[in-house]
Amino acid sequence: MVHRIDPGIIPFRKASECRIHVSGGEFNVAANLADCFRMKTGIATAMVDYPIGDLINERVRAMGVRPFYKMFEHNGVSGPNMATVYSDQGHGVRAPVVFYNRASEAAAQLQPGDFDWKSITAGGVRWFHSGGIFAALSPTTPEVIIEGMQAAKAAGAVVSFDLNFRAKLWQVAGGLEKAQDTLRRIVEHVDVIVGNEEDLQKGLGVQGPDVVAESKLDTTKFFGMMDDVAKKHPNVKVVATTLREVHTTNRHSWSAVAWIEGKTHQAPTCELDVLDRVGGGDGFAAGFFYGLLTGASPEEAIRLGWAHGALLTTFPGDTTMATLEQVQAFAKGGSARIQR
Amino acid sequence: MVHRIDPGIIPFRKASECRIHVSGGEFNVAANLADCFRMKTGIATAMVDYPIGDLINERVRAMGVRPFYKMFEHNGVSGPNMATVYSDQGHGVRAPVVFYNRASEAAAQLQPGDFDWKSITAGGVRWFHSGGIFAALSPTTPEVIIEGMQAAKAAGAVVSFDLNFRAKLWQVAGGLEKAQDTLRRIVEHVDVIVGNEEDLQKGLGVQGPDVVAESKLDTTKFFGMMDDVAKKHPNVKVVATTLREVHTTNRHSWSAVAWIEGKTHQAPTCELDVLDRVGGGDGFAAGFFYGLLTGASPEEAIRLGWAHGALLTTFPGDTTMATLEQVQAFAKGGSARIQR
Amino acid sequence: MVHRIDPGIIPFRKASECRIHVSGGEFNVAANLADCFRMKTGIATAMVDYPIGDLINERVRAMGVRPFYKMFEHNGVSGPNMATVYSDQGHGVRAPVVFYNRASEAAAQLQPGDFDWKSITAGGVRWFHSGGIFAALSPTTPEVIIEGMQAAKAAGAVVSFDLNFRAKLWQVAGGLEKAQDTLRRIVEHVDVIVGNEEDLQKGLGVQGPDVVAESKLDTTKFFGMMDDVAKKHPNVKVVATTLREVHTTNRHSWSAVAWIEGKTHQAPTCELDVLDRVGGGDGFAAGFFYGLLTGASPEEAIRLGWAHGALLTTFPGDTTMATLEQVQAFAKGGSARIQR
Amino acid sequence: MVHRIDPGIIPFRKASECRIHVSGGEFNVAANLADCFRMKTGIATAMVDYPIGDLINERVRAMGVRPFYKMFEHNGVSGPNMATVYSDQGHGVRAPVVFYNRASEAAAQLQPGDFDWKSITAGGVRWFHSGGIFAALSPTTPEVIIEGMQAAKAAGAVVSFDLNFRAKLWQVAGGLEKAQDTLRRIVEHVDVIVGNEEDLQKGLGVQGPDVVAESKLDTTKFFGMMDDVAKKHPNVKVVATTLREVHTTNRHSWSAVAWIEGKTHQAPTCELDVLDRVGGGDGFAAGFFYGLLTGASPEEAIRLGWAHGALLTTFPGDTTMATLEQVQAFAKGGSARIQR
Amino acid sequence: MVHRIDPGIIPFRKASECRIHVSGGEFNVAANLADCFRMKTGIATAMVDYPIGDLINERVRAMGVRPFYKMFEHNGVSGPNMATVYSDQGHGVRAPVVFYNRASEAAAQLQPGDFDWKSITAGGVRWFHSGGIFAALSPTTPEVIIEGMQAAKAAGAVVSFDLNFRAKLWQVAGGLEKAQDTLRRIVEHVDVIVGNEEDLQKGLGVQGPDVVAESKLDTTKFFGMMDDVAKKHPNVKVVATTLREVHTTNRHSWSAVAWIEGKTHQAPTCELDVLDRVGGGDGFAAGFFYGLLTGASPEEAIRLGWAHGALLTTFPGDTTMATLEQVQAFAKGGSARIQR
Amino acid sequence: MVHRIDPGIIPFRKASECRIHVSGGEFNVAANLADCFRMKTGIATAMVDYPIGDLINERVRAMGVRPFYKMFEHNGVSGPNMATVYSDQGHGVRAPVVFYNRASEAAAQLQPGDFDWKSITAGGVRWFHSGGIFAALSPTTPEVIIEGMQAAKAAGAVVSFDLNFRAKLWQVAGGLEKAQDTLRRIVEHVDVIVGNEEDLQKGLGVQGPDVVAESKLDTTKFFGMMDDVAKKHPNVKVVATTLREVHTTNRHSWSAVAWIEGKTHQAPTCELDVLDRVGGGDGFAAGFFYGLLTGASPEEAIRLGWAHGALLTTFPGDTTMATLEQVQAFAKGGSARIQR
Repeated sequence: MVHRIDPGIIPFRKASECRIHVSGGEFNVAANLADCFRMKTGIATAMVDYPIGDLINERVRAMGVRPFYKMFEHNGVSGPNMATVYSDQGHGVRAPVVFYNRASEAAAQLQPGDFDWKSITAGGVRWFHSGGIFAALSPTTPEVIIEGMQAAKAAGAVVSFDLNFRAKLWQVAGGLEKAQDTLRRIVEHVDVIVGNEEDLQKGLGVQGPDVVAESKLDTTKFFGMMDDVAKKHPNVKVVATTLREVHTTNRHSWSAVAWIEGKTHQAPTCELDVLDRVGGGDGFAAGFFYGLLTGASPEEAIRLGWAHGALLTTFPGDTTMATLEQVQAFAKGGSARIQR
Repeated sequence: MVHRIDPGIIPFRKASECRIHVSGGEFNVAANLADCFRMKTGIATAMVDYPIGDLINERVRAMGVRPFYKMFEHNGVSGPNMATVYSDQGHGVRAPVVFYNRASEAAAQLQPGDFDWKSITAGGVRWFHSGGIFAALSPTTPEVIIEGMQAAKAAGAVVSFDLNFRAKLWQVAGGLEKAQDTLRRIVEHVDVIVGNEEDLQKGLGVQGPDVVAESKLDTTKFFGMMDDVAKKHPNVKVVATTLREVHTTNRHSWSAVAWIEGKTHQAPTCELDVLDRVGGGDGFAAGFFYGLLTGASPEEAIRLGWAHGALLTTFPGDTTMATLEQVQAFAKGGSARIQR
Repeated sequence: MVHRIDPGIIPFRKASECRIHVSGGEFNVAANLADCFRMKTGIATAMVDYPIGDLINERVRAMGVRPFYKMFEHNGVSGPNMATVYSDQGHGVRAPVVFYNRASEAAAQLQPGDFDWKSITAGGVRWFHSGGIFAALSPTTPEVIIEGMQAAKAAGAVVSFDLNFRAKLWQVAGGLEKAQDTLRRIVEHVDVIVGNEEDLQKGLGVQGPDVVAESKLDTTKFFGMMDDVAKKHPNVKVVATTLREVHTTNRHSWSAVAWIEGKTHQAPTCELDVLDRVGGGDGFAAGFFYGLLTGASPEEAIRLGWAHGALLTTFPGDTTMATLEQVQAFAKGGSARIQR
Repeated sequence: MVHRIDPGIIPFRKASECRIHVSGGEFNVAANLADCFRMKTGIATAMVDYPIGDLINERVRAMGVRPFYKMFEHNGVSGPNMATVYSDQGHGVRAPVVFYNRASEAAAQLQPGDFDWKSITAGGVRWFHSGGIFAALSPTTPEVIIEGMQAAKAAGAVVSFDLNFRAKLWQVAGGLEKAQDTLRRIVEHVDVIVGNEEDLQKGLGVQGPDVVAESKLDTTKFFGMMDDVAKKHPNVKVVATTLREVHTTNRHSWSAVAWIEGKTHQAPTCELDVLDRVGGGDGFAAGFFYGLLTGASPEEAIRLGWAHGALLTTFPGDTTMATLEQVQAFAKGGSARIQR
Repeated sequence: MVHRIDPGIIPFRKASECRIHVSGGEFNVAANLADCFRMKTGIATAMVDYPIGDLINERVRAMGVRPFYKMFEHNGVSGPNMATVYSDQGHGVRAPVVFYNRASEAAAQLQPGDFDWKSITAGGVRWFHSGGIFAALSPTTPEVIIEGMQAAKAAGAVVSFDLNFRAKLWQVAGGLEKAQDTLRRIVEHVDVIVGNEEDLQKGLGVQGPDVVAESKLDTTKFFGMMDDVAKKHPNVKVVATTLREVHTTNRHSWSAVAWIEGKTHQAPTCELDVLDRVGGGDGFAAGFFYGLLTGASPEEAIRLGWAHGALLTTFPGDTTMATLEQVQAFAKGGSARIQR
Repeated sequence: MVHRIDPGIIPFRKASECRIHVSGGEFNVAANLADCFRMKTGIATAMVDYPIGDLINERVRAMGVRPFYKMFEHNGVSGPNMATVYSDQGHGVRAPVVFYNRASEAAAQLQPGDFDWKSITAGGVRWFHSGGIFAALSPTTPEVIIEGMQAAKAAGAVVSFDLNFRAKLWQVAGGLEKAQDTLRRIVEHVDVIVGNEEDLQKGLGVQGPDVVAESKLDTTKFFGMMDDVAKKHPNVKVVATTLREVHTTNRHSWSAVAWIEGKTHQAPTCELDVLDRVGGGDGFAAGFFYGLLTGASPEEAIRLGWAHGALLTTFPGDTTMATLEQVQAFAKGGSARIQR
């Protein structure tokens, strides 16, 4: 988990004020599921006993996520830290700029054995989710992920993983080959992958057909990769992702697709006025998992993910402010007409 | 009159700050006519002697509207209150959400005899306007409206009424049948109706042809209802309304139409970047009435209403910040090029 | 529980912006104990299923308080409502101004039987707290309090009650006699009273000696009332209160006293630069209860309450932002020197 | 140089808050070249020894521009002043509104001899730029411009001039004929003109063909004027300008063109979500000059200007917040996808 | 009337944001009397037809003051202007800094004959007030003041004048002798002077005893000057002023005195936490005049002025946000205890 | 140099917004001397090529300080970083809380040879200043300091050093003994020490008399240590420090003392309303050095430092917003009366 420093419209190089958000790929999904979709969720992560830790912990509680923390003590000067993400909003033709201060990050020190998975899963667990950013933090974090996935699977949970391939992080963490080795090892334990073409290609080395997609919304290539995924990772039942055509920072076309046990499904395409694009992918994942967990059809599940991800881009910060009713209405084709 | 609590982009469920606007259908029209169109206007309404009343009263004065108040004393705890409207701005695919706290609203206690219409109209009155929200507040408010209309008509005024059909309010106030009975009784005293298809259908039970409009901007159905309006309410000379196609909360297509003594008129359609959509309808009404009052042609009048309503969506709050010169320029086809 | 609308320095009659706080006497104490003192706390109250309810619920979760809600549905228009407290900050010689909109408040509809006290106290309960504002909301709320107190006592809990006598509320709720009848009936179930001279006098009709206190910080009169308290309410073991000498809205002298089973104890007096005075009393109560619950001496307990209440006046809003370490350091005589 | 008072979305007639920007046509170009393009730049201008002067001076330093000031003393009451530009942002169909308080402006008192051009150009100078707003301030400012141009040319610099024809200013400064006389005299010393059709027509009286441009992006008419420019001002080697089609205040189509020694060049057209349109032209000029100064091809130079001007409309204020890398990426066809 | 630009805590030389207040000595008194004391007041002044004029006019209306304007047209560039006052808040040991841009101020162009005093006073007038800042604007403004005073006196009004001696303004307006000549001519028409020792000494050349005041709150010297005032200006019945001992910008001791037909009166001294000191003197004047107009005793009148002036320093901006009830309570010795 | 994240009144554990300041002990002094005292200053430090570096660099330029940077490249993920200081403002009895993220700080990597002192001092240098925070960053930074001091001394500069003993930093950097060894080695090159009793005792191990100071403003102990300083460090000519008695976070008593070649000097004591206490010590140093550099008497020099440090606590951020005229007036006994 991280704190995100966000100067809004103004880039950091000229900023004098910023907002502080709390984020983290796994947390975002858990928070969305708890706050919007009213599911019981928890998070196992590193927590540091200092004011930034308290700040993050308050948001965990506020979103209704049950925490399981491995605690660290801050030395007041250099760590261990809850990492900082610097991220402005961009505007129009200017893209958001994102960079990190992950030096001496507490989460990177996590290692197998730090969590008592037995007690965590004692009350039953139906879904376990992790992602590629946490996997890239250190040599030990992938082992924590695998340990957790095994425990969850043993407890009967579906296991999902968001590839979230970030070149910058893996470059520091050992390069592309290291990334693929690591991610492939993780994916062996996974039922549901969240990831787009690029994630599959770069993160898992999946091969696709030699076509050129006409637009970012064209699914030809994505679906063309599924044969290779199925062959290499037969345990994977579902691969799903959002599709964005970025016209400007504030205007995207938005859709989502899923390959589910050999069948393909796609949500409609809608036009977004984006306020803050960060968190849209985790928003999709939460809605999609909710659908799968509550017995929705594949079609409904992907529409729930698509609708929630779309709504999430209309809020500041990385986690949901939507209600389940808004998500369901939008998934069914609702409009933006005022309700009064 | 109400105070509107507005958390802006953030929905109430996650809000920690908000702006306070002053609003009210009748007030908005009076304030627009006074502040932008430089007409002399007044308002007869309930006012409570407590800080929220003072806040509202200051905005009445600031907009240049002459107040005629029936005063109430607040007990410090439970009322009588100036009602609260909770209303966020929404964003993109997320619609604004509006709800109320109208419990123990002072205005609902107004009854015939509370206003001395004779002295109010003593200096002459050319136009009287009320609307469907005030009519839905209690069993006595429709009687106050009718009393005022009769006094105004006796003083030579044109009488207008904005149907403003709000299902939520009427549900609490007695249901659809009660609504139609009430509104029909009021409309018997009315020269100019402001209302769209839905207002006419639900509020007055007007029948239209069995066509399906291709878009919200298609006037076929609206004009098709005019025969029934004319038959049922032969006193009505004018029915006018705005037309919006809501693409997203921030982007609307905008037009306006009027049926005036059997003839139909339509303003152009333009594309709006909407900042705050609340008040656009009252903005149209003010410009349209200004046109009619100052001898503009029907075509010009509807363009003035359309232009002012369009400009109003570019301001925060429910009342105008435009100048007459801006309205006139836009009505004539002005553009958004910078003036320097 | 309420939402407090706070325009800060500017009084409501001229305000255009405000912050939204979440408050409630019982909640404030529970939230302080959970967030600062790291105790497990819960709250049993009314909750309405609408965005203001969600807003309040998020703050309950954020502060780490476990909710037990009796749910109500909002009709969109008039209630049942989560009450509004309007409260500015005042400044200097200008006092804060506080008034309410409690019309159709959901909490007033609570009645015995609404809470399943057995399951609430199932995991054990060591302390139960309620207060005089909730008691004044309706004829049924005192019965809910008594029912809860009986259940808590049966489960082995200490029972406390903050008299919080508010003349405005009781005037609407039936007057002084009604107040005293009600509060006396409640106090029969109470071990620990929080309340000052005025609360005891007006709320319980307690008699004191005929002395004139030299200042608000003089405890002669307060301690002089204890004989009468002990005689009339022999079940009461502790009476405690804060003492404030208000020089200006921003500068108070601050102390606290307790009568504990016949002995008297007093905290030091310190000078406060007050940012937001609301919540200081509940801040005292939380620290004091914490001390009593954790085996501190009476002297230490009252200093913990005094220190936490003092710190609380340096934060915006009604609930704590302090850490246990800050409270303990200040209770031991810490200073405001920067720590770096 | 001026201070710009900017109430943002809200027009001045209803504003209660504003931001203060520092601006000035020549300064904007120098600041953009220094801060984004990392060139060494300076500015010769009037400066007043009072807090507004200090405010402006700080922004000059912050942007990395070396100041050469003619100092004036403020009398505390009426001047000489650093001028005020009042300018809101407008929104959607509502254009920005701009007006001035240039009474007793210090810069209008500048006259030949005020600057020691020899020492200013002592370290070498490659480019000299001025513009039509400064030329309109008083009878003496055009002479200062010509003096500077002659000194710069003597030192080997390219000389450019942005016509920036502002009818309001020239009306006060002596009317159209005076404007044309003045600007023509200046242009005799100029190598590079920045100006659009209207600037050329009104400011220099240039004649063009009798065609009607289909849109603001149509360059037929602009290029059609170049024969007359070349005939009347054979010293002029380059005429360049941005092209905007203003759909709404927030949405423009944006391109740029240049006529360079008889050849015509055009940048692509892109769609802008405009945050603050002021400064876009100076943003273009800076990027274009940078290209010409660093040996870019005409095509690259105009794309650098176009890209930088486009990015500039995404920032508040009149000067750049972009990095050279962002400009180069956008000039090469970069997109608004997030970089992380 | 002026618009005041206020960057708050931050001095102008480092400011990037500011609030805009509306002010003017005469306006402040009229606004306070209307908004807080519920008297009918009006103002005769210059108004310019441009957005800053609209902004000022809205505040005039909002405060409930009836305007009588001599209108001027703005040329878009240099005036005539509504003057700018630049004024920060200062903090602690740092005093507020105030300076002006009064170049081409419209009010300076006012001359006798510009106002139709007959129609202004037609409905009766009980009090007429002006002050020394307006008198210093130009050679014609003192004549406008005298003309107005004569008309008001003829209509039966009490005439008051606030000397408000500002050295900076008179230095530009002709120096000390010019100031004294002008102010003495005005004071010949005056019943009530508002002014302190320094105003009397510098503005009217009044002589006092050769004592040295021990503190700013010592009235020896002020009362010692009354003999000379009475001798030189026998028409003057009342001289009143506030007394401040400025400990820091945020902490003042505050009192007020009056000499009324040979008798001396003094308000208590209280300690102020000052938020914005501008307007305190006009706040005193308004409360004092209200007392005199409503038949309060001299003692009560001066306490009302003192109380209202004290409250005014707790609000941002130059005009009142207090209620009559707050003023009366404070005048009677009320405290800053919260009211709830 | 660092960026300071400042949530103001609200502690980090509950913050959602913050301001970003730029700071650094050496930079603060250089910036104060340039911006307020109009001296030519420069800074030699580490700079990272990423947006936070740009942000810091802009403030360096804005304050008028000439930069000499050793550049580092950021890897986008973990550094090298410009360090973060987290620091709230505290309020009243609540002290500010300060902690750091200095992990992978670029400045810690600086080593002898990184700066070309010859070219830096080429134009002449009169003063060189460094401090104990930079000395604690790594084993190499003290060597950089000593190298710079030697170069400066060779160029004829006075050398000063602010002990700024921070226990937290030295604990991470090797403990007390390491601190004393390091600081003593540095002080061998120093003419002017800035530091209080605690700095001398803990940082240099200086012994003093066995007295107990009655208050923080009592100089007995401080002056009593000078014998030991003179004996151990005969090269030291001056030891100076501020004296604060912290009543609350917002109210300090403030003085300053200096021992100059055996003589002792003290500034007056004044009462401060503190807005942001960070930077007050550097503010003192700048004013004191300015006095010494411009030939002021010791008495005047210390008053200039005292006055500037006092004014600095009235501004947000760590560097000056004062003018030389304000400092001089306050040093001479000026007051906080408004200047208009």
